[in-house]
Amino acid sequence: MSTRFSVTYRLFAADLAQARTRAEAMALEQTVEIPADIVPAGYIAAEIVARIEALQPESHGRFRATLSYSPDSIGAELPQLLNVMFGNSSLQPGIKVLGFALGETVSKRFKGAAFGIQGLRALLRRPRGGLIAPVIKPQGLATEALAEIAYRCALAGADVIKEDHGLANQPSAPFRQRCEALAQAVARANAETGGAALYMPHLSGSAETLLDNAYFAKAAGAGGLLVIPGLLGFDRLRQLAEDPALGLPLMAHPSLLGAQVLSPTTGFTHGALFGDLMRLAGADISIFPNVGGRFGFTREQCLEIATRCRDPQGIGVPILPSPGGGMSIERATEMQAMYGEDVLYLLGGSLLRHGKHIGKAIQNLRRVLDGTTTGG
Amino acid sequence: MSTRFSVTYRLFAADLAQARTRAEAMALEQTVEIPADIVPAGYIAAEIVARIEALQPESHGRFRATLSYSPDSIGAELPQLLNVMFGNSSLQPGIKVLGFALGETVSKRFKGAAFGIQGLRALLRRPRGGLIAPVIKPQGLATEALAEIAYRCALAGADVIKEDHGLANQPSAPFRQRCEALAQAVARANAETGGAALYMPHLSGSAETLLDNAYFAKAAGAGGLLVIPGLLGFDRLRQLAEDPALGLPLMAHPSLLGAQVLSPTTGFTHGALFGDLMRLAGADISIFPNVGGRFGFTREQCLEIATRCRDPQGIGVPILPSPGGGMSIERATEMQAMYGEDVLYLLGGSLLRHGKHIGKAIQNLRRVLDGTTTGG
Repeated sequence: MSTRFSVTYRLFAADLAQARTRAEAMALEQTVEIPADIVPAGYIAAEIVARIEALQPESHGRFRATLSYSPDSIGAELPQLLNVMFGNSSLQPGIKVLGFALGETVSKRFKGAAFGIQGLRALLRRPRGGLIAPVIKPQGLATEALAEIAYRCALAGADVIKEDHGLANQPSAPFRQRCEALAQAVARANAETGGAALYMPHLSGSAETLLDNAYFAKAAGAGGLLVIPGLLGFDRLRQLAEDPALGLPLMAHPSLLGAQVLSPTTGFTHGALFGDLMRLAGADISIFPNVGGRFGFTREQCLEIATRCRDPQGIGVPILPSPGGGMSIERATEMQAMYGEDVLYLLGGSLLRHGKHIGKAIQNLRRVLDGTTTGG
Repeated sequence: MSTRFSVTYRLFAADLAQARTRAEAMALEQTVEIPADIVPAGYIAAEIVARIEALQPESHGRFRATLSYSPDSIGAELPQLLNVMFGNSSLQPGIKVLGFALGETVSKRFKGAAFGIQGLRALLRRPRGGLIAPVIKPQGLATEALAEIAYRCALAGADVIKEDHGLANQPSAPFRQRCEALAQAVARANAETGGAALYMPHLSGSAETLLDNAYFAKAAGAGGLLVIPGLLGFDRLRQLAEDPALGLPLMAHPSLLGAQVLSPTTGFTHGALFGDLMRLAGADISIFPNVGGRFGFTREQCLEIATRCRDPQGIGVPILPSPGGGMSIERATEMQAMYGEDVLYLLGGSLLRHGKHIGKAIQNLRRVLDGTTTGG
């Protein structure tokens, strides 16, 4: 006996009757995609067509509908799970995914993150406190210069040495050359400090070379990978997370996914996309634009993401939310009060302003996060 | 001397000064992602940082900005091209991609569709006239029943026997079993009619199995593949289009991509996504929801897609627009007047209403499209 997979949507409709009509249409659209009167009786009508499990008003013109789907609609593969969750319905205005529950049957197939918060803290040897990830950039800089920045950051005690998502496979610092140089730089710093900073390059390449590049990065000494599911597909993230020959923590970057959350009437909520969906696909760390930076995410949206990433009831083990931008020594105390301690702060472009004193800036931030001093 | 790659965006801003500030911020955001005052002089400032090539008002609160990027920002890979085009900027409200021009340097790398309209017409032996693609479904039906529908459609003279995007790798009709059965059914019909209908299964599977599944489908007799870039990533489509060992026409399906076009203030325009981007990634056929069906696309949006798909100045060879839904014998004359003849009409769920007489419905539609009779 299999348990069904369910998705909760926000539907925009004039009234409850119209919302029900929409939910009924979705139950067909997302499964058989044929009119109700020609759905074959028996297995298809009883099992395959989605069921409306709940439908209630949220506020004026907004309704909340939970539809359940058969595990048989999905099979064993993530692309088809997403297809069933929000394939064609994504093309109809006024439907937003609020969240989903895998159910027992589908849960057996999708295990979520391989490391999660606890696994990452063990690797980083940092059992508590906010975590720090300087971002190595800019695009166009030569490999040696990037390696020098990475070295200084690791030497200062940064936890994750993260590459900018804009460093790909460019002539100025090709992926493989960069992996080797930066992994060595971070290893050298770790040897000097006795620390355990993890270098996470942006996994770049084509569909043909991506997996080989991941293995190359691991062999070169990378301690994790930055992966962009909006560019590569969520199933690539899952593949990397499940690959026993790789075994590296994965950081998911939100590039190209903006439209999936920005509109109030389509796509996913911030928590559903950067929390639930990233956990489903196996991310250990979910990056999102922090409140107060160059992006418009609100405090509530950021907290929703952090909550979904760390929810003990979510898919697999809890993962680290990783707000990018908006963090500084001045704001560290406020950020800490907002997010708590299970969080990885990305320190972006403004960190580079410190030039050769970049390490000092990281050490100062660490002191605030560890509570040995307070922010400005 | 390399030529730059350029992207035209619609920016939402209060006035021209604010629009310029936004464009300047994007020039950094999409490349170096560091503040202007710390951009290294020389190569990075002069070549890597994007340039504002044009900026003008469109209408109240809307501006059109063209930014150019160095081919060095991209390297040779499609994911990074998309990352540069609309990676982080996708996460900022009020920016929409209107179109892009590869420029001579990047054009050498991305050739577009392998077949296009002319190549498909040659394979189909249908040099002119609107083309017909019945959609084989529903999900949950057994393989033999699906094969029977495919047989009847091919026997009646359909051009492309397209699988529903909801047929994946489910227990009721697993991908490989289905490929073999439907390819045989279509081959049998072709042998009887002397026709050249192409069977195009939905390429399903995981990241691990996808490519093998594509080869399997080809070996089984598939004449093309339905590919979902919103689920698999645009670079998978490109990989399949460029693979000389595969050599099959590719049909791109819009599943999960709705949010990328539905909001007026983020994502892509309909023409940029379902025209330009699909051509860039190598689709031969671009499916989109037709006006008048269950989706809200307007006549203008559909025509914009068709125009971009067929524009002789676009990337690679012109490709076939493929409106789904909204087509019937009654509307065939109107559709023909709207789209002209280089178009592949998807005939969806309502076609199944004809049951055993499905072939008759296809033959009637063919007569209208060939001008030997007129629609109702």
